Amino acid sequence: MEQEVKVAIYGATGYTGVELLNILSKHPRVKIVSLTSQSYAGRRLREVFPFFEGSLGDRFLEEEPSEDYHLAFLCLPHETSLELVPRLLEYGKRVIDLSGAYRINNKAVYPEYYGFEHSYPHLLERAVYGLPEVFREKIKEAQLVANPGCYPTSIILAVYPLLKAGVKVDKIVATSLSGVSGAGRKTALHFHFPEMFGDLFAYSLDRHRHVPEIESIIREVGGMEVSLRFSPVVVPISKGMLSSLSVFCERFDVLEAYLETYREEPFVRVVSEPPHVKHVLNTNLCLLYPFWDDKVGCLQVVSVIDNLGKGASSQAVQNFNLMMGFEEEMGLSKVPNFP
Amino acid sequence: MEQEVKVAIYGATGYTGVELLNILSKHPRVKIVSLTSQSYAGRRLREVFPFFEGSLGDRFLEEEPSEDYHLAFLCLPHETSLELVPRLLEYGKRVIDLSGAYRINNKAVYPEYYGFEHSYPHLLERAVYGLPEVFREKIKEAQLVANPGCYPTSIILAVYPLLKAGVKVDKIVATSLSGVSGAGRKTALHFHFPEMFGDLFAYSLDRHRHVPEIESIIREVGGMEVSLRFSPVVVPISKGMLSSLSVFCERFDVLEAYLETYREEPFVRVVSEPPHVKHVLNTNLCLLYPFWDDKVGCLQVVSVIDNLGKGASSQAVQNFNLMMGFEEEMGLSKVPNFP
Amino acid sequence: MEQEVKVAIYGATGYTGVELLNILSKHPRVKIVSLTSQSYAGRRLREVFPFFEGSLGDRFLEEEPSEDYHLAFLCLPHETSLELVPRLLEYGKRVIDLSGAYRINNKAVYPEYYGFEHSYPHLLERAVYGLPEVFREKIKEAQLVANPGCYPTSIILAVYPLLKAGVKVDKIVATSLSGVSGAGRKTALHFHFPEMFGDLFAYSLDRHRHVPEIESIIREVGGMEVSLRFSPVVVPISKGMLSSLSVFCERFDVLEAYLETYREEPFVRVVSEPPHVKHVLNTNLCLLYPFWDDKVGCLQVVSVIDNLGKGASSQAVQNFNLMMGFEEEMGLSKVPNFP
Amino acid sequence: MEQEVKVAIYGATGYTGVELLNILSKHPRVKIVSLTSQSYAGRRLREVFPFFEGSLGDRFLEEEPSEDYHLAFLCLPHETSLELVPRLLEYGKRVIDLSGAYRINNKAVYPEYYGFEHSYPHLLERAVYGLPEVFREKIKEAQLVANPGCYPTSIILAVYPLLKAGVKVDKIVATSLSGVSGAGRKTALHFHFPEMFGDLFAYSLDRHRHVPEIESIIREVGGMEVSLRFSPVVVPISKGMLSSLSVFCERFDVLEAYLETYREEPFVRVVSEPPHVKHVLNTNLCLLYPFWDDKVGCLQVVSVIDNLGKGASSQAVQNFNLMMGFEEEMGLSKVPNFP
Repeated sequence: MEQEVKVAIYGATGYTGVELLNILSKHPRVKIVSLTSQSYAGRRLREVFPFFEGSLGDRFLEEEPSEDYHLAFLCLPHETSLELVPRLLEYGKRVIDLSGAYRINNKAVYPEYYGFEHSYPHLLERAVYGLPEVFREKIKEAQLVANPGCYPTSIILAVYPLLKAGVKVDKIVATSLSGVSGAGRKTALHFHFPEMFGDLFAYSLDRHRHVPEIESIIREVGGMEVSLRFSPVVVPISKGMLSSLSVFCERFDVLEAYLETYREEPFVRVVSEPPHVKHVLNTNLCLLYPFWDDKVGCLQVVSVIDNLGKGASSQAVQNFNLMMGFEEEMGLSKVPNFP
Repeated sequence: MEQEVKVAIYGATGYTGVELLNILSKHPRVKIVSLTSQSYAGRRLREVFPFFEGSLGDRFLEEEPSEDYHLAFLCLPHETSLELVPRLLEYGKRVIDLSGAYRINNKAVYPEYYGFEHSYPHLLERAVYGLPEVFREKIKEAQLVANPGCYPTSIILAVYPLLKAGVKVDKIVATSLSGVSGAGRKTALHFHFPEMFGDLFAYSLDRHRHVPEIESIIREVGGMEVSLRFSPVVVPISKGMLSSLSVFCERFDVLEAYLETYREEPFVRVVSEPPHVKHVLNTNLCLLYPFWDDKVGCLQVVSVIDNLGKGASSQAVQNFNLMMGFEEEMGLSKVPNFP
Repeated sequence: MEQEVKVAIYGATGYTGVELLNILSKHPRVKIVSLTSQSYAGRRLREVFPFFEGSLGDRFLEEEPSEDYHLAFLCLPHETSLELVPRLLEYGKRVIDLSGAYRINNKAVYPEYYGFEHSYPHLLERAVYGLPEVFREKIKEAQLVANPGCYPTSIILAVYPLLKAGVKVDKIVATSLSGVSGAGRKTALHFHFPEMFGDLFAYSLDRHRHVPEIESIIREVGGMEVSLRFSPVVVPISKGMLSSLSVFCERFDVLEAYLETYREEPFVRVVSEPPHVKHVLNTNLCLLYPFWDDKVGCLQVVSVIDNLGKGASSQAVQNFNLMMGFEEEMGLSKVPNFP
Repeated sequence: MEQEVKVAIYGATGYTGVELLNILSKHPRVKIVSLTSQSYAGRRLREVFPFFEGSLGDRFLEEEPSEDYHLAFLCLPHETSLELVPRLLEYGKRVIDLSGAYRINNKAVYPEYYGFEHSYPHLLERAVYGLPEVFREKIKEAQLVANPGCYPTSIILAVYPLLKAGVKVDKIVATSLSGVSGAGRKTALHFHFPEMFGDLFAYSLDRHRHVPEIESIIREVGGMEVSLRFSPVVVPISKGMLSSLSVFCERFDVLEAYLETYREEPFVRVVSEPPHVKHVLNTNLCLLYPFWDDKVGCLQVVSVIDNLGKGASSQAVQNFNLMMGFEEEMGLSKVPNFP
C-alpha cells in the first residue's frame, strides 16, 4: 500500500467539515489523524454525526490536534483562521484554508467586508487561490491555499474563458441561487424549517464578501477592473448552487472559448442544455451553459455546482491532490446520487 | 343582499382555474354559473378537486357553458383563447383572458413566440392589458382584458416607477425564480416529484414568451425601446415568484419614485428589507425592494409575488372588481397563510 | 354592524398565535384589543410579521394587555398558562387555552408528563375540553376551554364514532405524521433547514404528552380503559398532520357509525378515498377514511388535519364561536389553498 | 488487476436501474457490458442521464444485450421479469431480479396481488429471497435471486430477531413512510411536483403487494402465521423509508435479541435513539430502534433504510457480492451524503 498523508481537520463539525470527512474517509491516500471542534471538544465524532462508525466515529474531537500531521484543512470562522494560519505555517505545516481569511490579496478589503483589520498582510501574498482550473501550477507548490468561496467558484469558472481569451468585459450581472447549507450549521429563525420551507429571499444585495473576492481574481487574471452586480438568493434546498450571469463584453466566439478552456479539465463541463443542480450534487463538477444573446448583445452563462462540493470541500480535496502530487481526481466523484 | 354578477370559468381544472374558483367562491358579489373543462367534461367538480364541497362541488364540468352569464374568465391554452375570444365578444360578453393570446399589441410577435399567426389582429387593439397599477382606468371600461403573465407582472411593477418618472433606461437584466405551478398542471418528467425535489434549473433562456410582453408594455408606457435580458429559473416550491432586476439607467431618486408611484396602491408595497416569497403566498400582493447600487451604477430591484395570485388569478379578480365598479380589494387577501 | 367581541391574544408571536391572528383579523365579530409577547414586547407586530399591515401591524406587543377585553386566547407555554388561567378566571374573563395545562382531568398526570405539579387541580374540573364534535354543549357554557392538542384532535375524531356506538375497544395503534410547525417556532439543530430537508424521524416514542390526553378523553366519553400505542413522526413539511390508526375492537358497521356520527358536522368529513393532507391545509377540516380490515380483523382509519388549523388555532375559533353563540363556521375556511 | 464480472442491466433507465448503474460503475470487480431499455433503446445513456460521462455515458441502450455476460440485474416490470427469467436461466445466466415476479413461493398469491397467473411456478422454488441477513448462505449458491421489496426489507429486518429467537408473534401493525421514488419514474398527477409538494397520503391500505411477501417470509423463517396490518404512506421526499412497527408478542429480552442477531452484520445497526432517514440515504444501511413498551405490552421498532439502497439496488449489489464470492461490502457505502 502506498503511503498515506497525515491530515488534521480543524472545525470538523460544520457542513464543510463533515463533507470533507466524508470525502477524506474514502480517499485512498489520506490518514485523518486529528479532528478539532470548539463546540464539541471532548466528545466522540459519532456523538455528533452518528453515521460515522468504526474507528473514525470513535475518534475524539479535540481542541487542538494531539498528533502530528502534514497538512491541515481549516473549516473555521474567518477570524479564527486568520490567527491560526501564521502559527501553522511557522510550524511548517501545509494549509488549505476554507475560510475567507486569506483569499483576497488586498488587505484594505478586510475591514470593510469582514469587519477586521488583516493582521498578516504579508501572508496574503503567499496564499494561493485554490481554483485549480486557474491556478493549478501555483497550487502544486503552495504552502497555503485559500480555498475559494462557493459563489466565486461558480462565477469565476463561468467567466474565466473570457479572461483567458482577453475579451474586454464591461459589466457582469450575476444572480446566484444557493441552498441553505451555504449559510452554515448555526440555527437562525429564517432557516428554521417551517419558515424556510417554500420560501425564497435575496440577501446581502449591496455588500457581499464574495464580491471583492471575485473582482480581485478577475483583476489578477484578466488585468481588468470589472463592475460586478451580484445578487444572492437563498432557495429551499439543502445543497446546490446555480449562478446566472449576464456579461456585457465584446462579442467573441463563445463556444470555442469555453470548449478550448475546459477541454482538458476533469471537473468542468460545457453543456448544450441549461444544466440541473441535481446533476452535480455530491460531486466536484461544475457545469457551464454559455451562449451569446444576439438580441441584447451580451454573453449569458448558467453555472451549477454543489456549494459544499466544488464550492467548498471537494475542491479542497482537489487542491490537496495537486499539492501532494496525487492524481487530481483521486477520491472525487463525478456522478451524483440521483434522484 | 346586493346583486351578484354571473360568471363563467373556462378551463376550471388547471392551476389558474382552481385558484380562481377558490377566490371567487368566497367573493361576495359573484355567482359562478358555469365551469368548463376539456379533460373532465361530464364530471362533477368534486371529482377533480375533492375539497370543493356543497353546491359548488356538485356542479358538473361542461364543454360549453349551459347557462347565461355576464363575464367569462378564460384559463385556457393560448390557441383556444385566441379562437374563443372573438365569439364571446360578439355575443356581448365581457372577458378576462388569462392566456397570452391577446396580451401583445403586435401581431408579428405571435408566429415567433407563440407558434401561430394571430387571426384577429384588430382585437389586439381592443384588449386592455390587465395590470391595474398601470392601466386602471382603461380596465374599468374594457370589454376584453388580457390578464398579464406572472413574470411580466413581477417585472413591470418593478420598473413602472422609472417609466412614470421618465427615467431613461438602457438595459434590464432580470432573473426570475418561479415555483413549479407556473408550468401548469400537465405532468412532465422533469417535474415528477423525485426529479424536481432538490433541483434548480434555468430554461427558455433565449426565447421566452414573456419577453415581448414586457418589452411591449415598456414601449407603450415608457415610450422607450429597452433591451431585456431575461433568465427564468424553476425552483422546487409549488407557488411563488422572485424577480431580481438590475436596471442600467440614469440615476434618479429611487425611493421617492417608488413611494410616489405606489403610495395609494392597495396591493403593491415598497419595503425596506429584501422581501420573502412566503409573505405574499395566497395574496394579491407585490412587494418591491429597490435601491441604487452606487458602486456599479445601476438600479437593483427585488420583486416578489404569488405566481398564481398577483401573477394570475387574484389579479384577474382585481381586474374583475374594476370592470364591475366594485371595491378593488373585494374578495382579495393581503395576509399570507404563515408558516 | 353587529357588535364585536373584544379579545386578547397572549403569546401572539408563536405559530399558533400567528395563525389565530390571521383567522381573527378576518373574523367579522372580533376586535383584537391586545397582543402579548414575552420575546417581542415593546415592538410592533409588523416588526415580527411584516405581512400584518395597517392598524393591526402597527399595534405594539405588550407584556400584559393594557386594554380591557372579554375573552383571552392563550398561546403560551404550559407552565405560563398554568399560572395565568386562575388569575384571568378570577377577573371574570373567558379563556381558551391552547396549551396543555388544563386538558387532562387528572392531576397525577402532570408531574409525569409535563414535569410540574398541577397547582390548581380544582380548575381541571371546570375546564371543558374544546373538541366541539364531542363536547359542543359544554363548550357553549364554558368559562375555560382547554383547546385540544393536534395529535389528540386527529386521533379522537378518528375513534369517536366507536365510543359513541359503544363498541368495545381493546387496543389502538396510532402512528401520526406531523409537519415541523407542530414543534413550535423555537429553533433547534434538527429543525435547521439543511438537516430537516429530506429527513424523517420518530420521537417521544415511549412517553408523549398527548397519550394521557387521548386516554383520558376515551375514558370520559367511552367509559373504557384503552391501551394506546402512539408513535409520532416528524416529516419535512411546514403544516399538516396524518394519523393512521389500527383499532382492535369488536366488529361493527363502520360506515354507518362514521356517517351517523358526523353527518351534521360542518368540519368533519368521512371520505371514500385515503385523504390528502394538502386538501385540509389552512382549513378547519378533518377528513376521515375508515374501513374494516377483514383479513386482520381490525378497524383501520386514516385522519388528516392541519396541525395549526383544526389541530390548534382554527379549532380555537370554532370554540370561540360556540362560546359566543355565533354561527359555528364564522370566519373559518373549508377550502384549502391549492396547490 | 483482478478479473471483472460481466453484467447486464435490464431496464437501466428507471430509478432502481440508475441507482444500480451508479453503484456498479464504481464497483471494482464489475464490467457493465450491456444496458437495456424499452423506452430509450437506440439512444446513448448520456442522453437519458447526462451525468454519466465517458465510455459509460456513450454506451447505447439496447433492446436486448448484444454482448455476452455472466449475470443479469433485472429492473423491469413484474410481467416482463416473469417471462424473461426462465429464458435467462435456461441460457445459464445468473439473475438478480428486482421485480416482484419471483419473490413469493406461493403461486396463488400472484393473480390476487399482481394480476397475473404465475406461468413458472416451479421456478418460485428455485428463487432465493435476496435478504442477506436471513438467507446469506442460500444466496451464495443461487442462480436466481429475488431481490426484496423496499417495504419488506425495512419490515422483515425489524422482526427477524423475533423469528430467530422463536418469540411467538400474534399481530404486527406496520406503518411505513416512503419517498416518492418508490413509485418509480413514471409520471402521475399526484406525483406532479406542485401536487406532491407539502402533501402526505396513504394508499393501497387494504391490498398491497408487499403484504404477502412479508407474510410468506415470516412463515418460512418463523414457522408462524402472523397477521400483518400494513399502512404505507407517501411523504414528500425523493428517497428514504421509515417503518414504525408495533408487534404484539410474548415478552422477551429485546436488546439482547437484536444485538445478538445483528452483531456481525455489516449493514444493520441497532441504535439507541430513534434513527433519522437522512443518516442512511445513499447507503446500504438499515438502522433499527427497538424497545419493549411496558405500558401497552408490545414491541415497538422503528426501522430506516434508503428505499433505493438497502430497499433495492445496493441490496442487489450486496447479493451480487455474495453470489460472486466477493467481499460482501465491496462497492457499498455506509456513510450518507450529509446534509
